[in-house]
Amino acid sequence: MNLAEKILAAHSGKPHVAPGEFISAKVDVVLANDITAPIAIREFRKLGVEKVFDPKKIVLVPDHFVPNKDIASAEQAKMLRDFAREQGVNFFECGQMGIEHVILHEKGLVVPGDLVVGADSHTCTYGALGAFATGMGSTDIGAAMATGDVWMKVPPTIKFVYHGKLPKYVGGKDLILYTIGQIGVDGALYAAMQFSGEAIDELSMEGRFTMANMAIEAGGKAGLFLADKKAVEYARNHSHRKPVVFEPDADAEYQAMHEYDVSKLEPQVALPHLPSNVRPVSQVGDISLDQVVIGSCTNGRFEDLQMAAGILKGKKVNSNLRCIIIPGSQQVYMDALRAGYIEAFIEAGCAVSTPTCGPCLGGHMGILAAGEKCLATTNRNFIGRMGSPRSEVYLAGPAVAAASAIAGKIVPPEI
Amino acid sequence: MNLAEKILAAHSGKPHVAPGEFISAKVDVVLANDITAPIAIREFRKLGVEKVFDPKKIVLVPDHFVPNKDIASAEQAKMLRDFAREQGVNFFECGQMGIEHVILHEKGLVVPGDLVVGADSHTCTYGALGAFATGMGSTDIGAAMATGDVWMKVPPTIKFVYHGKLPKYVGGKDLILYTIGQIGVDGALYAAMQFSGEAIDELSMEGRFTMANMAIEAGGKAGLFLADKKAVEYARNHSHRKPVVFEPDADAEYQAMHEYDVSKLEPQVALPHLPSNVRPVSQVGDISLDQVVIGSCTNGRFEDLQMAAGILKGKKVNSNLRCIIIPGSQQVYMDALRAGYIEAFIEAGCAVSTPTCGPCLGGHMGILAAGEKCLATTNRNFIGRMGSPRSEVYLAGPAVAAASAIAGKIVPPEI
Repeated sequence: MNLAEKILAAHSGKPHVAPGEFISAKVDVVLANDITAPIAIREFRKLGVEKVFDPKKIVLVPDHFVPNKDIASAEQAKMLRDFAREQGVNFFECGQMGIEHVILHEKGLVVPGDLVVGADSHTCTYGALGAFATGMGSTDIGAAMATGDVWMKVPPTIKFVYHGKLPKYVGGKDLILYTIGQIGVDGALYAAMQFSGEAIDELSMEGRFTMANMAIEAGGKAGLFLADKKAVEYARNHSHRKPVVFEPDADAEYQAMHEYDVSKLEPQVALPHLPSNVRPVSQVGDISLDQVVIGSCTNGRFEDLQMAAGILKGKKVNSNLRCIIIPGSQQVYMDALRAGYIEAFIEAGCAVSTPTCGPCLGGHMGILAAGEKCLATTNRNFIGRMGSPRSEVYLAGPAVAAASAIAGKIVPPEI
Repeated sequence: MNLAEKILAAHSGKPHVAPGEFISAKVDVVLANDITAPIAIREFRKLGVEKVFDPKKIVLVPDHFVPNKDIASAEQAKMLRDFAREQGVNFFECGQMGIEHVILHEKGLVVPGDLVVGADSHTCTYGALGAFATGMGSTDIGAAMATGDVWMKVPPTIKFVYHGKLPKYVGGKDLILYTIGQIGVDGALYAAMQFSGEAIDELSMEGRFTMANMAIEAGGKAGLFLADKKAVEYARNHSHRKPVVFEPDADAEYQAMHEYDVSKLEPQVALPHLPSNVRPVSQVGDISLDQVVIGSCTNGRFEDLQMAAGILKGKKVNSNLRCIIIPGSQQVYMDALRAGYIEAFIEAGCAVSTPTCGPCLGGHMGILAAGEKCLATTNRNFIGRMGSPRSEVYLAGPAVAAASAIAGKIVPPEI
C-alpha cells in the first residue's frame, strides 16, 4: 500500500484497502468554520444525538468573516460559540484565533498519521504532516461530529517528484502553482497527491503546508508528504499527541508519476481566472496592480511574513496600491511582531490586519471594485473570487507579492 | 465676541457676527469620507465646475469600511481615489491612512483658528485645537469643494467650566459623558460648546479631541477649546501652517454656563441606548459583556492605547468575550507598537485591527449578534448602532474598557 492507503487502512480497521473501495473510517479531527459549522450543527441536531462523539476531536473556528463583518456573520459566529460551550469542543476566535488551516497544526491538534475531515476544501493542508486530511460537505461533518466516523472511497495516489535544489525566492507556492499549471485544475481529480524528491526534502514545513493546501486546486482528494524528521519534530514541538509515521511499501501502486527538475524554476504566477493559468513571473507581462494581499491559509505563516518583510523592510509600498498583510494566526502575528516584521510592514505603508480569511474568498478586508487587479498569496483566482466579477486576481508566493507591492506591478523579486 | 464668533467673523470678512446671523464664510479645510464623498462628488459634478477651489484644502479619507468590506464599499473607495487623482486633493487610504478625525490634526491639516467643514458629524473633533469645526450635509460639502465657501447660521455658545483636578483613570471621555448625561442629547442643540476650567487646562490634547468629538452627541454645532500653549505647540509639532489664536472678549456673551466640580468624578458609562444615559461605573450593575472595542475617532489615539495597555499588560482578556483594539491611524499603530502596547494587546488575547471606523457605526470588524452586549470607547450607543437591533452598546473610556475586558463584565479600573 502507498501512504494514503496505509493511513486509511489503519483508520478503517482493515489490513488492506485499495483505490475505489468504499470504507468507513474513524477520524481523529472533525473541523468546521463559520460558514460550514452552522449547517453541520443543524445536521447534527437532526440526528437526535445529545453529545458529540468526542469533544477533544472536534474543532470549530470562525475565521472567514471575523471579527464579524455584519449581522449575519455575527449570528453565525454566535451559533458556533453557543454550540462549543454546550458541547465543550475546541473553539478559537478573535484574540485566541487564526485561520483554521494555520492554527490546527500550530496548536498541535493534528499529528502525523491522523485522519482529518473538515467542512472546508483546504482541509487538505494537514497532509504536510503525513496525515490524510480532506474536505467534506457539512452534512458529512455533522454526522462525523455525532459518530466519529466517515465513509469515503479510497482514492488512487499520484506521485510527484521534484528533483534539484530550489533557487532563491522559489518556494512551496511556486512548486504547487507550477504543478497545477502542468496538470490542470482537474489533473488530480479525486486522487491523493503525494509530494517527494530532493526539493521536498529541503522544503520547510511551512512550504509543505502551502503545497498540501493547494492540492484541492488540482482536484486532489488530499495532498500528502511522508512524515520525515522535520514533520515528526514539528509535531513533537506543537503537540502532546504521539505521531504515527506510515511508510509506503516498496511495491506500493500509484496511478501516475510526474517528475520535474526544479533547479531552474522561476517564481510562478497564476493569471486570471484559474490557478492552472500559470506562467513564470518573467513572462507575465506588464500588469499594474491596485492591491497586494499577503496572507491566507496558503501563505499566512511566519516564513511567508519573513520573506515579505525581508523584501519590504526599508522600502515603501507603491502609492498606487494597497498592500494588506494578514498574519494567519495570533501566534504568527506575535512571532512576526517580535521579529520586527510588523514594524517593517507598517513603516513600508502596509495595512496589517488581525487574522482572518478576509479577502481571499471575497469575505471582507480588501474586496475589489470593478476593473481592479490584485496579486495575492491566496489559493484561488476564479472570476469574482475577491470581489467584483470584473476584477482580476493573480496568485503568487510572498516574494513576488512583496516585490510587486513596491513596484506597483507584477515583478520578480530582485536577486 | 466669544471664541466661536471671533473665528466665524474672521472667516466671513465681517468685523462682528452674532448668534442667529446667517453668514457666508471661507473654509480652510473641506473633508469627506467613503460614505459621504460619493454624494459630495456627484453634487460637485452637477455644478459644472472643472476644478476644486483649492486641492490642498480638500481631504478625502475612506475610513468607514476599509480595507473594503464588500463590493459596494470597494466601488465607493474607488470613486474617491479616482476623484483624488483627477483633482490632486489630499487622499489617505490603507497603509497611509487612519480614521479621518484622527489623521487630519496628526498630519497637520488643521491648526488653531481654522474653519473646518466635513461631511461627517464628528468633524467637531478639531475644536480641540481652537478651530471652528462642524459637520455638514454632503450637498453643502460638494458646493464647498467647488467654491471654498459655506453658509451657516452663527450658533450661540454654551460655556462649560470644569473645576478641580481629575482623579486617576478619569479623562476626557468621562468629562464629556458626564456632561451629556447632565444636559441631555439635545442639551446643546445648534450651540457651540466651549470647554474650560482647571481640569481642561490639565487635560492632554488627546483628551480634548475626545471631548470635542462628542459635542455632536449633545446636539452641539461645534465643541471648542481656547488654543492654549498645548494646542499651539501641538499644531507647531504637526503642521507647517501658522496657528491663529483667537481670544474671547472679556464681555463676550454666552447662552448659558454650566460649572462642574470634577475632583471626585468617577469613570462614567453610558448605558443603552443613548449617550446621555450616563452613570458612574460603580452604579452600572452587573453587566456581562460579549465584546469590548477600544478605538474610534473618539478614543483611538496613542494616549487611549497607552491607558488600555497599562491595564491589559500581563493580564488575559476574559475567555467569554472578544476584545478588539483599533488604532486610529497608522501613526498611532506605529507609536503603540514601538511602545510595546501592540505586543501587550496580542499577549493579552486581543485582536488588533488595522485602522478603521469599523464596528463603531456597525460597519464591520466586530458587529454584534442579537442579545450581545458590547462596551466600546466609541461615541454612540443607539439601538442597532453596532449590529443587531437586539444588541446593546455601552460607552466608556479606555480604562473602563480595558478593565472590563479582563473581568468579562463592566467594572471600574483597579486603583
